[in-house]
Amino acid sequence: MSGFVSLVGAGPGDPDLLTLRAARALEQAQIVFYDALVSPASVALASRAQRFSVGKRCGRPAIRQETIHALLIRSARRGKRVVRLKGGDPFVFGRGGEEALALAAAGVPFEVVPGVSSAVAAPALAGIPVTHRGVSSGFVVASGHLDGRLPAALESVAAGSATLVVLMGLGTRERLAQGLVERGWRLHTPAAIVFGAGGPSQHTWRGTLATLGRAELPEGDLPGTIVIGEVVRLAAVLGREEQGRAQGHARG
Amino acid sequence: MSGFVSLVGAGPGDPDLLTLRAARALEQAQIVFYDALVSPASVALASRAQRFSVGKRCGRPAIRQETIHALLIRSARRGKRVVRLKGGDPFVFGRGGEEALALAAAGVPFEVVPGVSSAVAAPALAGIPVTHRGVSSGFVVASGHLDGRLPAALESVAAGSATLVVLMGLGTRERLAQGLVERGWRLHTPAAIVFGAGGPSQHTWRGTLATLGRAELPEGDLPGTIVIGEVVRLAAVLGREEQGRAQGHARG
Repeated sequence: MSGFVSLVGAGPGDPDLLTLRAARALEQAQIVFYDALVSPASVALASRAQRFSVGKRCGRPAIRQETIHALLIRSARRGKRVVRLKGGDPFVFGRGGEEALALAAAGVPFEVVPGVSSAVAAPALAGIPVTHRGVSSGFVVASGHLDGRLPAALESVAAGSATLVVLMGLGTRERLAQGLVERGWRLHTPAAIVFGAGGPSQHTWRGTLATLGRAELPEGDLPGTIVIGEVVRLAAVLGREEQGRAQGHARG
Repeated sequence: MSGFVSLVGAGPGDPDLLTLRAARALEQAQIVFYDALVSPASVALASRAQRFSVGKRCGRPAIRQETIHALLIRSARRGKRVVRLKGGDPFVFGRGGEEALALAAAGVPFEVVPGVSSAVAAPALAGIPVTHRGVSSGFVVASGHLDGRLPAALESVAAGSATLVVLMGLGTRERLAQGLVERGWRLHTPAAIVFGAGGPSQHTWRGTLATLGRAELPEGDLPGTIVIGEVVRLAAVLGREEQGRAQGHARG
Protein backbone atom coordinates (compact mmCIF):
# COMPACT_ATOMS: atom_id res chain seq x y z
CA MET A 1 0.00 0.00 0.00
CA SER A 2 1.26 3.41 -0.92
CA GLY A 3 1.64 6.28 1.48
CA PHE A 4 0.73 9.85 0.81
CA VAL A 5 2.43 13.21 1.30
CA SER A 6 0.58 16.42 2.17
CA LEU A 7 2.55 19.61 1.57
CA VAL A 8 0.87 21.78 4.16
CA GLY A 9 1.05 25.51 4.80
CA ALA A 10 1.00 26.29 8.51
CA GLY A 11 0.21 30.00 8.12
CA PRO A 12 2.08 32.82 9.80
CA GLY A 13 2.67 31.37 13.26
CA ASP A 14 -0.54 31.21 15.27
CA PRO A 15 -1.99 27.66 15.22
CA ASP A 16 -5.40 29.34 15.01
CA LEU A 17 -4.47 30.41 11.49
CA LEU A 18 -4.05 26.83 10.28
CA THR A 19 -6.79 25.82 7.88
CA LEU A 20 -9.29 23.15 8.89
CA ARG A 21 -7.74 20.90 6.24
CA ALA A 22 -4.24 21.46 7.58
CA ALA A 23 -5.36 20.67 11.12
CA ARG A 24 -6.98 17.44 9.95
CA ALA A 25 -3.91 16.42 7.94
CA LEU A 26 -1.80 16.92 11.07
CA GLU A 27 -4.19 14.94 13.27
CA GLN A 28 -4.07 12.03 10.82
CA ALA A 29 -0.34 12.20 10.12
CA GLN A 30 2.02 9.39 11.00
CA ILE A 31 5.19 11.35 10.23
CA VAL A 32 5.67 15.12 10.17
CA PHE A 33 8.68 16.98 8.79
CA TYR A 34 8.47 20.60 9.87
CA ASP A 35 10.34 23.84 9.29
CA ALA A 36 11.93 26.01 11.95
CA LEU A 37 9.40 28.82 11.57
CA VAL A 38 6.41 26.64 12.35
CA SER A 39 5.09 27.17 15.88
CA PRO A 40 5.49 24.26 18.33
CA ALA A 41 1.75 24.42 19.04
CA SER A 42 1.00 23.74 15.38
CA VAL A 43 3.40 20.80 15.25
CA ALA A 44 1.83 19.44 18.45
CA LEU A 45 -1.50 18.97 16.66
CA ALA A 46 0.14 15.94 15.05
CA SER A 47 -0.22 14.11 18.33
CA ARG A 48 0.04 10.63 16.87
CA ALA A 49 2.96 11.32 14.56
CA GLN A 50 6.70 11.03 14.73
CA ARG A 51 7.86 14.63 14.35
CA PHE A 52 11.14 15.75 12.82
CA SER A 53 12.51 19.25 12.45
CA VAL A 54 14.14 19.79 9.08
CA GLY A 55 14.20 23.55 9.41
CA LYS A 56 17.02 25.81 8.53
CA ARG A 57 17.57 29.32 9.85
CA CYS A 58 20.38 31.73 9.10
CA GLY A 59 23.63 30.72 10.70
CA ARG A 60 22.64 27.19 11.59
CA PRO A 61 23.56 24.02 9.75
CA ALA A 62 21.00 23.20 7.09
CA ILE A 63 19.58 19.88 6.05
CA ARG A 64 20.08 19.65 2.31
CA GLN A 65 16.97 20.01 0.20
CA GLU A 66 17.71 16.69 -1.50
CA THR A 67 17.78 14.99 1.90
CA ILE A 68 14.30 16.33 2.62
CA HIS A 69 13.10 14.95 -0.70
CA ALA A 70 14.57 11.54 0.11
CA LEU A 71 12.97 11.52 3.58
CA LEU A 72 9.54 12.34 2.16
CA ILE A 73 9.77 9.71 -0.57
CA ARG A 74 11.11 7.00 1.70
CA SER A 75 8.43 7.61 4.33
CA ALA A 76 5.65 7.50 1.75
CA ARG A 77 7.03 4.29 0.24
CA ARG A 78 6.78 2.72 3.68
CA GLY A 79 3.06 3.40 3.45
CA LYS A 80 2.98 6.34 5.85
CA ARG A 81 0.73 9.36 5.88
CA VAL A 82 3.33 12.09 5.72
CA VAL A 83 2.89 15.80 6.37
CA ARG A 84 5.50 18.28 5.21
CA LEU A 85 4.67 21.33 7.30
CA LYS A 86 5.93 24.72 6.16
CA GLY A 87 5.49 28.23 7.49
CA GLY A 88 3.02 30.37 5.55
CA ASP A 89 2.09 28.84 2.21
CA PRO A 90 4.12 25.96 0.74
CA PHE A 91 4.41 27.63 -2.67
CA VAL A 92 5.51 31.09 -1.50
CA PHE A 93 9.31 30.82 -1.17
CA GLY A 94 8.78 27.50 0.57
CA ARG A 95 10.57 25.33 -1.99
CA GLY A 96 7.30 23.44 -2.04
CA GLY A 97 7.42 23.36 -5.82
CA GLU A 98 10.72 21.50 -5.72
CA GLU A 99 9.41 19.00 -3.20
CA ALA A 100 6.25 18.46 -5.24
CA LEU A 101 8.34 17.86 -8.37
CA ALA A 102 10.49 15.33 -6.51
CA LEU A 103 7.39 13.50 -5.30
CA ALA A 104 5.82 13.51 -8.76
CA ALA A 105 9.05 12.19 -10.30
CA ALA A 106 9.15 9.40 -7.73
CA GLY A 107 5.52 8.48 -8.39
CA VAL A 108 4.51 9.33 -4.82
CA PRO A 109 0.94 10.66 -4.51
CA PHE A 110 0.71 14.02 -2.83
CA GLU A 111 -1.51 17.01 -2.29
CA VAL A 112 -0.90 20.69 -1.66
CA VAL A 113 -2.77 22.32 1.22
CA PRO A 114 -2.50 26.08 0.75
CA GLY A 115 -1.85 28.13 3.85
CA VAL A 116 -2.30 31.71 4.95
CA SER A 117 0.78 33.41 3.52
CA SER A 118 2.71 35.81 5.72
CA ALA A 119 3.00 38.02 2.65
CA VAL A 120 -0.62 39.05 3.14
CA ALA A 121 -1.34 38.06 6.73
CA ALA A 122 1.61 39.71 8.46
CA PRO A 123 0.63 43.15 7.10
CA ALA A 124 -3.06 42.44 7.79
CA LEU A 125 -2.40 41.47 11.40
CA ALA A 126 -0.55 44.76 11.81
CA GLY A 127 -3.47 46.71 10.32
CA ILE A 128 -1.94 47.16 6.86
CA PRO A 129 -4.12 46.21 3.88
CA VAL A 130 -1.82 45.32 0.97
CA THR A 131 -4.45 46.75 -1.38
CA HIS A 132 -6.61 49.77 -0.60
CA ARG A 133 -8.88 51.75 -2.91
CA GLY A 134 -7.21 54.92 -4.05
CA VAL A 135 -3.91 54.01 -2.41
CA SER A 136 -2.68 50.67 -3.79
CA SER A 137 -4.18 48.66 -6.62
CA GLY A 138 -1.78 45.75 -6.32
CA PHE A 139 1.19 44.30 -4.49
CA VAL A 140 4.49 42.64 -5.24
CA VAL A 141 5.94 39.84 -3.15
CA ALA A 142 9.65 39.08 -3.27
CA SER A 143 12.29 37.55 -1.06
CA GLY A 144 15.08 39.60 0.46
CA HIS A 145 17.85 37.41 -0.89
CA LEU A 146 19.69 39.97 -2.95
CA ASP A 147 22.56 38.24 -4.75
CA GLY A 148 24.18 41.64 -5.12
CA ARG A 149 21.16 43.27 -6.72
CA LEU A 150 17.45 43.71 -6.12
CA PRO A 151 15.28 40.68 -6.95
CA ALA A 152 13.89 41.04 -10.48
CA ALA A 153 10.34 41.37 -9.17
CA LEU A 154 11.34 44.44 -7.14
CA GLU A 155 13.84 45.94 -9.52
CA SER A 156 11.34 46.25 -12.30
CA VAL A 157 8.45 47.83 -10.40
CA ALA A 158 8.03 51.52 -11.11
CA ALA A 159 8.58 53.56 -7.96
CA GLY A 160 5.44 53.94 -5.90
CA SER A 161 3.21 51.92 -8.21
CA ALA A 162 2.41 49.05 -5.84
CA THR A 163 2.78 47.84 -2.28
CA LEU A 164 6.00 45.86 -1.82
CA VAL A 165 6.15 42.92 0.56
CA VAL A 166 9.56 41.42 1.23
CA LEU A 167 9.92 38.13 3.05
CA MET A 168 13.23 37.05 4.59
CA GLY A 169 14.64 40.53 4.08
CA LEU A 170 15.76 41.51 7.58
CA GLY A 171 19.43 40.92 6.87
CA THR A 172 19.40 42.88 3.63
CA ARG A 173 16.98 45.66 4.57
CA GLU A 174 19.57 48.42 4.28
CA ARG A 175 20.69 47.46 0.77
CA LEU A 176 17.08 46.83 -0.17
CA ALA A 177 16.03 50.33 0.86
CA GLN A 178 19.05 51.81 -0.87
CA GLY A 179 18.32 49.88 -4.06
CA LEU A 180 14.74 51.08 -4.13
CA VAL A 181 15.75 54.70 -3.57
CA GLU A 182 18.23 54.37 -6.43
CA ARG A 183 15.35 53.12 -8.57
CA GLY A 184 13.37 56.26 -7.85
CA TRP A 185 11.40 55.41 -4.72
CA ARG A 186 11.01 58.46 -2.48
CA LEU A 187 13.00 58.42 0.76
CA HIS A 188 9.92 59.16 2.83
CA THR A 189 7.90 56.24 1.42
CA PRO A 190 6.35 54.61 4.51
CA ALA A 191 7.83 51.26 5.51
CA ALA A 192 7.10 48.76 8.24
CA ILE A 193 8.48 45.53 9.59
CA VAL A 194 6.01 43.14 11.18
CA PHE A 195 7.91 40.90 13.59
CA GLY A 196 6.57 37.53 14.68
CA ALA A 197 3.24 37.95 12.90
CA GLY A 198 0.47 35.93 14.46
CA GLY A 199 2.59 34.90 17.42
CA PRO A 200 2.63 36.13 21.02
CA SER A 201 5.55 38.49 20.38
CA GLN A 202 4.06 40.21 17.34
CA HIS A 203 5.00 43.84 17.08
CA THR A 204 5.56 46.35 14.32
CA TRP A 205 8.35 48.76 13.53
CA ARG A 206 7.26 51.73 11.42
CA GLY A 207 9.35 54.28 9.58
CA THR A 208 10.29 55.13 6.02
CA LEU A 209 12.67 53.91 3.35
CA ALA A 210 15.14 56.42 4.79
CA THR A 211 15.11 54.75 8.21
CA LEU A 212 14.43 51.11 7.26
CA GLY A 213 18.12 50.24 7.18
CA ARG A 214 18.56 51.37 10.79
CA ALA A 215 15.41 49.66 12.13
CA GLU A 216 16.37 47.82 15.28
CA LEU A 217 15.83 44.07 15.28
CA PRO A 218 14.32 42.38 18.33
CA GLU A 219 16.19 39.83 20.40
CA GLY A 220 15.89 36.22 19.39
CA ASP A 221 15.02 34.80 16.06
CA LEU A 222 11.66 36.39 15.20
CA PRO A 223 10.86 36.41 11.49
CA GLY A 224 10.05 39.80 10.00
CA THR A 225 7.91 40.80 7.05
CA ILE A 226 8.82 44.11 5.40
CA VAL A 227 6.03 46.21 3.86
CA ILE A 228 6.74 49.29 1.77
CA GLY A 229 4.18 51.73 0.41
CA GLU A 230 1.56 54.30 1.31
CA VAL A 231 -0.76 51.62 2.77
CA VAL A 232 1.62 51.41 5.74
CA ARG A 233 0.12 54.67 7.02
CA LEU A 234 -3.15 52.85 7.71
CA ALA A 235 -1.49 50.90 10.52
CA ALA A 236 -1.73 54.00 12.68
CA VAL A 237 -5.53 53.63 12.60
CA LEU A 238 -6.00 49.90 11.97
CA GLY A 239 -3.14 48.39 13.97
CA ARG A 240 -3.65 45.54 16.37
CA GLU A 241 -3.81 47.75 19.44
CA GLU A 242 -6.14 50.18 17.73
CA GLN A 243 -8.53 47.35 16.85
CA GLY A 244 -9.09 46.08 20.36
CA ARG A 245 -8.88 49.51 21.95
CA ALA A 246 -11.98 51.02 20.36
CA GLN A 247 -14.51 51.54 23.15
CA GLY A 248 -12.23 49.68 25.55
CA HIS A 249 -13.41 46.28 24.36
CA ALA A 250 -11.58 43.33 25.92
CA ARG A 251 -10.70 40.98 23.09
CA GLY A 252 -11.57 37.32 23.45
CA MET B 1 -22.33 46.41 26.23
CA SER B 2 -20.49 46.82 22.98
CA GLY B 3 -20.53 44.36 20.15
CA PHE B 4 -17.62 43.33 18.06
CA VAL B 5 -16.93 42.93 14.34
CA SER B 6 -14.64 40.28 12.87
CA LEU B 7 -13.53 40.93 9.29
CA VAL B 8 -12.97 37.33 8.23
CA GLY B 9 -11.37 35.85 5.15
CA ALA B 10 -13.17 32.72 3.98
CA GLY B 11 -10.41 31.49 1.69
CA PRO B 12 -10.87 30.43 -1.92
CA GLY B 13 -14.16 28.54 -1.73
CA ASP B 14 -13.73 25.22 0.04
CA PRO B 15 -14.90 25.47 3.68
CA ASP B 16 -11.96 23.20 4.54
CA LEU B 17 -9.70 26.14 3.72
CA LEU B 18 -11.21 28.36 6.39
CA THR B 19 -8.81 28.94 9.25
CA LEU B 20 -9.60 27.54 12.69
CA ARG B 21 -10.06 31.12 13.89
CA ALA B 22 -12.49 31.90 11.08
CA ALA B 23 -14.51 28.77 11.82
CA ARG B 24 -14.74 29.71 15.48
CA ALA B 25 -15.75 33.29 14.70
CA LEU B 26 -18.55 31.93 12.51
CA GLU B 27 -19.74 29.48 15.16
CA GLN B 28 -19.92 32.28 17.72
CA ALA B 29 -21.43 34.88 15.40
CA GLN B 30 -24.86 36.36 15.97
CA ILE B 31 -25.00 38.17 12.63
CA VAL B 32 -23.09 37.39 9.44
CA PHE B 33 -22.83 39.62 6.37
CA TYR B 34 -21.30 37.59 3.53
CA ASP B 35 -20.15 38.16 -0.02
CA ALA B 36 -21.44 36.36 -3.11
CA LEU B 37 -18.22 34.42 -3.65
CA VAL B 38 -18.29 32.74 -0.24
CA SER B 39 -19.46 29.14 -0.42
CA PRO B 40 -22.85 28.32 1.18
CA ALA B 41 -21.16 25.61 3.25
CA SER B 42 -18.87 28.20 4.83
CA VAL B 43 -21.76 30.52 5.63
CA ALA B 44 -23.65 27.57 7.12
CA LEU B 45 -21.01 27.20 9.84
CA ALA B 46 -22.61 30.26 11.42
CA SER B 47 -25.49 28.06 12.52
CA ARG B 48 -26.71 30.36 15.30
CA ALA B 49 -26.47 33.58 13.32
CA GLN B 50 -28.77 35.67 11.21
CA ARG B 51 -27.15 35.56 7.79
CA PHE B 52 -27.35 38.27 5.14
CA SER B 53 -25.88 38.30 1.66
CA VAL B 54 -24.41 41.67 0.80
CA GLY B 55 -22.52 40.36 -2.19
CA LYS B 56 -22.25 41.96 -5.54
CA ARG B 57 -21.39 40.22 -8.77
CA CYS B 58 -21.13 41.65 -12.26
CA GLY B 59 -24.48 42.55 -13.70
CA ARG B 60 -26.46 42.35 -10.50
CA PRO B 61 -27.61 45.23 -8.35
CA ALA B 62 -25.01 46.08 -5.74
CA ILE B 63 -25.46 47.06 -2.15
CA ARG B 64 -23.55 50.28 -1.67
CA GLN B 65 -20.35 50.04 0.31
CA GLU B 66 -21.57 52.75 2.69
CA THR B 67 -24.67 50.66 3.40
CA ILE B 68 -22.46 47.74 4.40
CA HIS B 69 -20.52 50.03 6.75
CA ALA B 70 -23.77 51.22 8.32
CA LEU B 71 -25.05 47.64 8.77
CA LEU B 72 -21.84 46.56 10.49
CA ILE B 73 -21.76 49.56 12.81
CA ARG B 74 -25.44 49.38 13.70
CA SER B 75 -25.25 45.64 14.46
CA ALA B 76 -22.20 46.08 16.67
CA ARG B 77 -23.84 48.95 18.54
CA ARG B 78 -26.73 46.64 19.34
CA GLY B 79 -24.17 44.52 21.16
CA LYS B 80 -23.95 41.76 18.55
CA ARG B 81 -21.01 39.58 17.61
CA VAL B 82 -20.79 40.38 13.93
CA VAL B 83 -18.84 38.53 11.24
CA ARG B 84 -18.14 40.19 7.91
CA LEU B 85 -17.25 37.20 5.73
CA LYS B 86 -15.30 37.79 2.53
CA GLY B 87 -13.90 35.50 -0.13
CA GLY B 88 -10.15 34.95 0.07
CA ASP B 89 -8.45 37.45 2.36
CA PRO B 90 -10.28 40.58 3.56
CA PHE B 91 -7.39 42.88 2.64
CA VAL B 92 -6.74 41.60 -0.90
CA PHE B 93 -9.19 43.57 -3.07
CA GLY B 94 -11.85 42.90 -0.47
CA ARG B 95 -12.46 46.53 0.51
CA GLY B 96 -11.72 45.27 4.00
CA GLY B 97 -9.51 48.28 4.59
CA GLU B 98 -12.42 50.61 3.96
CA GLU B 99 -14.68 48.65 6.30
CA ALA B 100 -12.00 48.59 8.99
CA LEU B 101 -11.55 52.36 8.68
CA ALA B 102 -15.30 52.90 8.99
CA LEU B 103 -15.40 50.74 12.12
CA ALA B 104 -12.40 52.51 13.65
CA ALA B 105 -13.96 55.91 12.90
CA ALA B 106 -17.19 54.81 14.58
CA GLY B 107 -15.32 53.54 17.64
CA VAL B 108 -16.49 49.96 17.02
CA PRO B 109 -13.99 47.31 18.17
CA PHE B 110 -12.99 44.90 15.44
CA GLU B 111 -10.42 42.35 14.43
CA VAL B 112 -9.04 41.13 11.12
CA VAL B 113 -8.88 37.37 10.55
CA PRO B 114 -6.60 36.79 7.56
CA GLY B 115 -7.71 34.17 5.07
CA VAL B 116 -6.11 32.02 2.42
CA SER B 117 -5.94 34.37 -0.56
CA SER B 118 -7.00 33.05 -3.95
CA ALA B 119 -4.01 34.94 -5.35
CA VAL B 120 -1.74 32.21 -3.97
CA ALA B 121 -4.14 29.33 -3.35
CA ALA B 122 -5.87 29.19 -6.73
CA PRO B 123 -2.57 28.67 -8.55
CA ALA B 124 -1.38 26.26 -5.84
CA LEU B 125 -4.50 24.13 -6.08
CA ALA B 126 -3.90 23.91 -9.82
CA GLY B 127 -0.29 22.83 -9.29
CA ILE B 128 1.27 26.23 -10.02
CA PRO B 129 3.75 27.55 -7.45
CA VAL B 130 3.79 31.36 -7.71
CA THR B 131 7.47 31.27 -6.81
CA HIS B 132 9.90 28.55 -7.93
CA ARG B 133 13.65 28.45 -7.67
CA GLY B 134 15.27 29.36 -10.95
CA VAL B 135 11.95 30.24 -12.56
CA SER B 136 10.24 32.97 -10.53
CA SER B 137 11.66 34.89 -7.60
CA GLY B 138 8.51 36.87 -6.90
CA PHE B 139 4.95 37.58 -7.90
CA VAL B 140 2.67 40.52 -8.55
CA VAL B 141 -1.00 40.55 -7.61
CA ALA B 142 -3.39 42.96 -9.31
CA SER B 143 -7.06 43.21 -10.13
CA GLY B 144 -8.35 43.02 -13.67
CA HIS B 145 -10.26 46.28 -13.45
CA LEU B 146 -8.55 48.15 -16.24
CA ASP B 147 -9.98 51.68 -16.38
CA GLY B 148 -8.70 51.91 -19.93
CA ARG B 149 -5.14 50.94 -19.06
CA LEU B 150 -3.25 48.23 -17.21
CA PRO B 151 -3.28 48.52 -13.42
CA ALA B 152 -0.14 50.34 -12.26
CA ALA B 153 1.18 47.22 -10.56
CA LEU B 154 1.11 45.32 -13.86
CA GLU B 155 2.06 48.15 -16.15
CA SER B 156 5.33 48.77 -14.43
CA VAL B 157 6.62 45.21 -14.16
CA ALA B 158 9.38 44.44 -16.63
CA ALA B 159 8.31 41.73 -19.04
CA GLY B 160 8.96 38.24 -17.74
CA SER B 161 10.46 39.36 -14.43
CA ALA B 162 7.81 37.91 -12.11
CA THR B 163 4.72 35.74 -11.97
CA LEU B 164 1.56 37.80 -12.51
CA VAL B 165 -1.65 36.91 -10.72
CA VAL B 166 -4.78 38.77 -11.78
CA LEU B 167 -7.98 38.53 -9.76
CA MET B 168 -11.35 39.53 -11.21
CA GLY B 169 -9.82 39.71 -14.68
CA LEU B 170 -12.03 37.37 -16.70
CA GLY B 171 -13.93 40.17 -18.39
CA THR B 172 -10.83 42.07 -19.36
CA ARG B 173 -8.51 39.17 -20.17
CA GLU B 174 -8.17 40.06 -23.83
CA ARG B 175 -7.16 43.67 -23.21
CA LEU B 176 -4.97 42.53 -20.36
CA ALA B 177 -3.04 40.11 -22.57
CA GLN B 178 -2.79 42.73 -25.29
CA GLY B 179 -1.52 45.34 -22.84
CA LEU B 180 1.17 43.00 -21.53
CA VAL B 181 2.32 42.09 -25.03
CA GLU B 182 2.54 45.79 -25.85
CA ARG B 183 4.71 46.19 -22.77
CA GLY B 184 7.14 43.58 -24.09
CA TRP B 185 5.81 40.30 -22.73
CA ARG B 186 6.36 37.46 -25.19
CA LEU B 187 3.26 36.11 -26.92
CA HIS B 188 4.09 32.55 -25.91
CA THR B 189 4.41 33.34 -22.20
CA PRO B 190 2.42 30.56 -20.49
CA ALA B 191 -0.90 31.61 -18.99
CA ALA B 192 -3.60 29.82 -17.04
CA ILE B 193 -7.03 30.52 -15.63
CA VAL B 194 -8.01 28.58 -12.52
CA PHE B 195 -11.80 28.46 -12.36
CA GLY B 196 -13.67 27.85 -9.11
CA ALA B 197 -10.50 27.20 -7.10
CA GLY B 198 -11.10 25.02 -4.08
CA GLY B 199 -14.66 24.24 -5.09
CA PRO B 200 -16.22 21.12 -6.63
CA SER B 201 -16.08 22.59 -10.15
CA GLN B 202 -12.42 23.57 -10.05
CA HIS B 203 -10.71 23.27 -13.40
CA THR B 204 -7.88 24.98 -15.22
CA TRP B 205 -7.55 26.46 -18.68
CA ARG B 206 -3.97 26.60 -19.95
CA GLY B 207 -2.53 28.45 -22.91
CA THR B 208 -0.37 31.48 -23.56
CA LEU B 209 -0.71 35.25 -23.66
CA ALA B 210 -1.53 34.81 -27.34
CA THR B 211 -4.56 32.64 -26.59
CA LEU B 212 -5.68 34.05 -23.22
CA GLY B 213 -8.12 36.47 -24.84
CA ARG B 214 -9.95 33.60 -26.54
CA ALA B 215 -10.03 31.28 -23.52
CA GLU B 216 -13.55 29.94 -23.20
CA LEU B 217 -15.36 30.73 -19.96
CA PRO B 218 -17.39 28.02 -18.24
CA GLU B 219 -21.14 28.23 -17.75
CA GLY B 220 -22.38 29.90 -14.61
CA ASP B 221 -20.67 32.37 -12.43
CA LEU B 222 -17.39 30.66 -11.46
CA PRO B 223 -14.65 33.07 -10.38
CA GLY B 224 -11.38 32.77 -12.24
CA THR B 225 -7.82 33.52 -11.22
CA ILE B 226 -5.43 34.35 -14.06
CA VAL B 227 -1.77 33.34 -13.72
CA ILE B 228 0.88 34.44 -16.19
CA GLY B 229 4.50 33.33 -16.28
CA GLU B 230 6.83 30.40 -16.77
CA VAL B 231 5.68 28.74 -13.52
CA VAL B 232 2.42 27.87 -15.30
CA ARG B 233 4.31 25.08 -17.09
CA LEU B 234 4.63 23.22 -13.79
CA ALA B 235 0.89 22.58 -13.76
CA ALA B 236 1.46 19.86 -16.34
CA VAL B 237 3.35 17.88 -13.70
CA LEU B 238 1.89 19.18 -10.45
CA GLY B 239 -1.77 19.71 -11.37
CA ARG B 240 -4.59 18.42 -9.25
CA GLU B 241 -5.17 15.32 -11.34
CA GLU B 242 -1.46 14.58 -11.51
CA GLN B 243 -1.21 14.75 -7.72
CA GLY B 244 -3.81 12.11 -6.95
CA ARG B 245 -2.98 10.00 -9.97
CA ALA B 246 0.55 9.06 -8.96
CA GLN B 247 0.47 5.30 -8.27
CA GLY B 248 -3.31 5.32 -8.61
CA HIS B 249 -3.86 6.55 -5.06
CA ALA B 250 -7.50 7.31 -4.21
CA ARG B 251 -7.53 10.67 -2.47
CA GLY B 252 -9.32 10.98 0.83
